[in-house]
Amino acid sequence: MIPNPETKYRPFPPVHFPQRTWPDKKITQAPIWCAVDMRDGNQSLINPMDHDRKIKFFKLLIECGFKEIEVGFPSASETEFNFVRFLIENDMIPDDVTIQVLSAARPDLIERTFEALKGAKNVVFHIYNATAEIFRRIVFNKSEDEIIELATSATQIVKDLCTKYPETKWTFEYSPENFSLTEIDYAIRICEAVTNVWNPSKERPMIINLPSSVEVNTPNVFADQIEYFSTNFAQRDKITLSVHPHNDRGTAVATAELALMAGADRIEGCLFGNGERTGNVDIITLAMNMYTQGINPKLDFHDIKRIVEIVKECNELPVHPRHPYAGELVFTAFSGSHQDAIKKGFQARQNQQHSYWELPYLPIDPADLGCSYEAVIRVNSQSGKSGAAWILQQNHGIELPPHLQREFSSVIQQQTDQTGHELTPAEIWDIFRTQYGLKNQEKLVLQEFNVEQNAPNSTKLKLTLAINGKKVTLEGVGNGVLSAGTAILKAKTQLDFRIVEYNEHTLGKSSDSRSISYIKCSNKNGDSFWGVAIDNDILGSSLKALLNAVSQFID
Amino acid sequence: MIPNPETKYRPFPPVHFPQRTWPDKKITQAPIWCAVDMRDGNQSLINPMDHDRKIKFFKLLIECGFKEIEVGFPSASETEFNFVRFLIENDMIPDDVTIQVLSAARPDLIERTFEALKGAKNVVFHIYNATAEIFRRIVFNKSEDEIIELATSATQIVKDLCTKYPETKWTFEYSPENFSLTEIDYAIRICEAVTNVWNPSKERPMIINLPSSVEVNTPNVFADQIEYFSTNFAQRDKITLSVHPHNDRGTAVATAELALMAGADRIEGCLFGNGERTGNVDIITLAMNMYTQGINPKLDFHDIKRIVEIVKECNELPVHPRHPYAGELVFTAFSGSHQDAIKKGFQARQNQQHSYWELPYLPIDPADLGCSYEAVIRVNSQSGKSGAAWILQQNHGIELPPHLQREFSSVIQQQTDQTGHELTPAEIWDIFRTQYGLKNQEKLVLQEFNVEQNAPNSTKLKLTLAINGKKVTLEGVGNGVLSAGTAILKAKTQLDFRIVEYNEHTLGKSSDSRSISYIKCSNKNGDSFWGVAIDNDILGSSLKALLNAVSQFID
Repeated sequence: MIPNPETKYRPFPPVHFPQRTWPDKKITQAPIWCAVDMRDGNQSLINPMDHDRKIKFFKLLIECGFKEIEVGFPSASETEFNFVRFLIENDMIPDDVTIQVLSAARPDLIERTFEALKGAKNVVFHIYNATAEIFRRIVFNKSEDEIIELATSATQIVKDLCTKYPETKWTFEYSPENFSLTEIDYAIRICEAVTNVWNPSKERPMIINLPSSVEVNTPNVFADQIEYFSTNFAQRDKITLSVHPHNDRGTAVATAELALMAGADRIEGCLFGNGERTGNVDIITLAMNMYTQGINPKLDFHDIKRIVEIVKECNELPVHPRHPYAGELVFTAFSGSHQDAIKKGFQARQNQQHSYWELPYLPIDPADLGCSYEAVIRVNSQSGKSGAAWILQQNHGIELPPHLQREFSSVIQQQTDQTGHELTPAEIWDIFRTQYGLKNQEKLVLQEFNVEQNAPNSTKLKLTLAINGKKVTLEGVGNGVLSAGTAILKAKTQLDFRIVEYNEHTLGKSSDSRSISYIKCSNKNGDSFWGVAIDNDILGSSLKALLNAVSQFID
Repeated sequence: MIPNPETKYRPFPPVHFPQRTWPDKKITQAPIWCAVDMRDGNQSLINPMDHDRKIKFFKLLIECGFKEIEVGFPSASETEFNFVRFLIENDMIPDDVTIQVLSAARPDLIERTFEALKGAKNVVFHIYNATAEIFRRIVFNKSEDEIIELATSATQIVKDLCTKYPETKWTFEYSPENFSLTEIDYAIRICEAVTNVWNPSKERPMIINLPSSVEVNTPNVFADQIEYFSTNFAQRDKITLSVHPHNDRGTAVATAELALMAGADRIEGCLFGNGERTGNVDIITLAMNMYTQGINPKLDFHDIKRIVEIVKECNELPVHPRHPYAGELVFTAFSGSHQDAIKKGFQARQNQQHSYWELPYLPIDPADLGCSYEAVIRVNSQSGKSGAAWILQQNHGIELPPHLQREFSSVIQQQTDQTGHELTPAEIWDIFRTQYGLKNQEKLVLQEFNVEQNAPNSTKLKLTLAINGKKVTLEGVGNGVLSAGTAILKAKTQLDFRIVEYNEHTLGKSSDSRSISYIKCSNKNGDSFWGVAIDNDILGSSLKALLNAVSQFID
């Protein structure tokens, strides 16, 4: 990096367009989507897809609901050519799906492309040439008019060849490349010249596709370019205005959204933003952004994890853990305050199942993408009291009493502070069981019990315990089972304690559900311990919880 | 996904602000940057950083030039507390760097935070509370006024405690969370109430930080919120207006950029966009976006690969291969037309070293980020004639003659089509050498030669060759060395061929540079072959190239 970048870099001059109206607009409906994964995406892979991966990807795009799919650049190589033939000859393209192919504006390449397309039902024939000043000067050394001549003559060739193949329904697409670096009035001029040659109608519009092949400015500048173009283009009602945003500045999604507000009808992009260099705009993010605003995106990503797996396999590229809507961490809260808010949000939602979605820190219901709520809250050293409690609740149906929740969270915090690692649900469950006597508690183990109530407030309890493995039978009386149990244990252990908190609930909703009991005992010194137990019987779980609590007073 | 998302999702109502001026603004200077990697970033890691990783990250942020660094949430855990103490007690904070700490607006947490800060020179004390309607209702069940009271009383506590520690230069920061979901006039009301308590001055402004804790709308809506806030806030000249964008909709970078145009002075974010869920805004992308527009970002990422490695190690998260400015593929062109344009761009630049940067498909000079040009062009089945030629040129100084360039590209294309894999520079070099006789050519091997010119246009050549390993000495005459060599070989092999193209150039620029020769021979049937050879002597390389070409006519 040089300290004075103004000597090396300068912005491309933005179009002056204070009349813009797009900042007052909203996106109200899905655009026409065109997936260019198999062309722009594919050409930028370290190892472009082989035949099998291409077929897999094509089928996935169909399943997701794409109706326009750019399937390749048939004149570029045998592989590309043969793949298009395969799709057509094996009748793999549904009637409502249009394949799109790209060709440079060169006669030989155009002819070769037509050969690849014989017998196709619906085709977008897409040609491009470079129009930006830097390309005209550095790459082609041609004048503005020469570049226009190149585009219009290629258009005429495509038009002539289309009439040779009347069995195909042809749509024509032209891209001036790199639109965002092309002087806006020249871009309009060349696109109008091409449109005049093609001569589209309102009923059979052609596509003008405006690529930001390299992203070179803030998204609002591109939106101004699009609205200026849309406003000043002579035959606007006879074209479908398409954009093709790249992501060099990390703002392709915003660029596409603002372009829609500015008048674009159609978007070309890729799943998870694959494509040259920093990639094309990510259509999944765009579509889900609309979805969370209540707009039907006309695309279906209801099983996002499967889509991630297929695309990863085909592209041999990862999907980042923080990729919007799809990354493995994007529905996860580790922080205590976030977890607490989410937990309360879910509680509130239980009472209002049919209201609008409003969950703190979750802009979309993970279930809509086929994700469970299990991973919504995960526990690291930054998690508060809600985190571990949520995990016990989600995985085991355990509703910790508030005081126990606080005490358990400090146990967990100590653990994460010490190890520095995330605790998995299994680890949290293990710590919980070990801490409260559900596991490995051998000091006071219940073997048998017998309860008799001979008079009101007089319960006689007979307990058979294994005390450190040694069988003992004890008897006691109280005004209830727990007070009788307390009396027995106090007598036997010579400890002075009392029950200060007691909770119990069923686990699960069937009549044979098991029961979980939570008991907190304190002694005169202020020491107190929780015991927890699960049993098929409410009495069993209570007595065991008592034993588990009391066992902790014993050294 | 449900087919009718309008029944489940609705957008948060945008502020009505047609007076906006930000779409006509440009970013002209770097904002104040605050790196929140060690707090927001850290709390969202699967395994938050341990002490050593935190130290490493802190040092990296200092090296990058950050002057404000949020180092933690000291009241949240022992680890966080102890880390802040360590920085202070070991004098690790440069005098021109301000550490920032976050605390919830609770008296006990605020006090604990002050304990962590004893002895620090410059501190931003940052408190937040939830202000959005959904939080007030679902999470806290508090009225607007109660939430304001919570914020102002916490501010008063901070203010009082600051006077207790006059050795520290305190700056106060308040965040209404989630600003983007808070009714705009209420957001202004609570921020003004807090500001009134703090009572900042133009000389000692406080920071009002407006987080889009969850990104909920298009970036222009956030920009409207920021400009509305900035325009209507009573003590605007006494606050630093900060934003803290998250990336749930994949538009955090755009949101930050439009917010700067709308009046924000300061940005909180993370390296490579780490942070809760989809992450915080990526400060590297933001800074480099400015850089490519000729604005000094006041941050230094000149060795981006090293930064990637350190951050990956500390966060235990990947940086995506397509991450702007930093991913391993973002300066790479695989496609033929891109490669061709880039090659021409570099050629043009050689003649105009000091002009503005304008390279097709490369919005920034990779060298400015410490990257070489080697990986700019890589070769897969989508690459055209320029790709392989570029790699030979970059790695071996070889300037293929145009016809050979075309012929070699078809060799490469066949190879990539067959294998489906990218070819590495080493593989391309190997294919080149094998194809044109530089390697493993044993049919016609030069061992010795002798040239005599006795009269003009009469050159006598004596060649000692190993023909399939068998030593032979041959003589011939021609009007030059090559014609003499041709005569010898025609006589010996009984083949009828002639030289149709000849090129030679030095490899390297010193006087003892080696020479490379390219010779194309054709026979009457129209078969033709290129031979290439490298030798210390121009004569040697020519004769060897001839032998390498002719050897290919021999079965």
